[in-house]
Amino acid sequence: MARWEPGARERFVAAALELFTDQGYDDTTVAQIAERANLTKSTFFRHFSDKREVLAAGQETLSRLFVEGIAGAPAEASPLQAVAAGLDNAASAMTPFNRQLGPRLHAVIATSSELQERAVLKQVGMARAMADALRERGIPDQVATTAAELGVLAFKEAFAEWIADGADDDANLAALLREALDRLRSAVAQLG
Amino acid sequence: MARWEPGARERFVAAALELFTDQGYDDTTVAQIAERANLTKSTFFRHFSDKREVLAAGQETLSRLFVEGIAGAPAEASPLQAVAAGLDNAASAMTPFNRQLGPRLHAVIATSSELQERAVLKQVGMARAMADALRERGIPDQVATTAAELGVLAFKEAFAEWIADGADDDANLAALLREALDRLRSAVAQLG
Repeated sequence: MARWEPGARERFVAAALELFTDQGYDDTTVAQIAERANLTKSTFFRHFSDKREVLAAGQETLSRLFVEGIAGAPAEASPLQAVAAGLDNAASAMTPFNRQLGPRLHAVIATSSELQERAVLKQVGMARAMADALRERGIPDQVATTAAELGVLAFKEAFAEWIADGADDDANLAALLREALDRLRSAVAQLG
Repeated sequence: MARWEPGARERFVAAALELFTDQGYDDTTVAQIAERANLTKSTFFRHFSDKREVLAAGQETLSRLFVEGIAGAPAEASPLQAVAAGLDNAASAMTPFNRQLGPRLHAVIATSSELQERAVLKQVGMARAMADALRERGIPDQVATTAAELGVLAFKEAFAEWIADGADDDANLAALLREALDRLRSAVAQLG
């Protein structure tokens, strides 16, 4: 019987990012990732469908957290307040592990146009998921779409600040997210 | 010496869309497209790098038109007025040919997840190009980004209306674009 490995997922991600950085994404195999993580290939495939999935899985989790947060916002929340609830929910699930691996993840993605395209598509998917969740609340189509776009932009900006070199050790992602969303709200007021 | 073919580009696009619709995108070769267009393969390759480019070229042209229109907007234009100038410039370049082939183009893209991904990436590229053009005007980063997102959304909506079954024969794309941008401006005012 397969033994359950606590933290296996994180170990695979850390091992994969090390190998992608050291020897390149294309030249890294699942067998090498498993070996580096001190786990088996079959355990790998219980967590991820392939090595690309190691990079994309975080974005899928984020989408789910956004959607849950938006669905759980109070009925009287404005569209942007519902988005803020989604961002809050995502922030509450982010760990020091996410923060520590963020820069390496970004660096790996920057090495490959295929990975960059994957990341862009995932972001578009996140915005769609958010917009769907907002429409579920009865928010009109275009309001939902624009609110979701702002939500994804806010997340990108705040996350980049959170993982940046020189960011305060106790920088709070939830606070950075609220600030980023506020800045975008002000930006929108200047559209003319 | 190669003979210059007036309208060759449009003939290739029309031939390619016919073949993609009839026999599928994957099963269509450049040789078949050239034959259907009554032109040579070497003429094809003077216009497009491959068959995928036939579908993407329109989006690249659009990006260029948006950017030119934004750059040419009066100095005192607000961010959304500059976007509107970009949309106007694109509208002025759209022909009955674009309108006629639009539905077939959309239908072909809908048949393939690879083509859908390409189209999404091109749209993201268009928004970036617009945002860059807005930043060139001294518009702050986030204002430029959000204005560009609204511009691409407006274009998608208005173009879909223009090519829709049952749209008025003399529907005016420029007018539809202005209406779409106005709707999005109102949507943004409801973000809360």
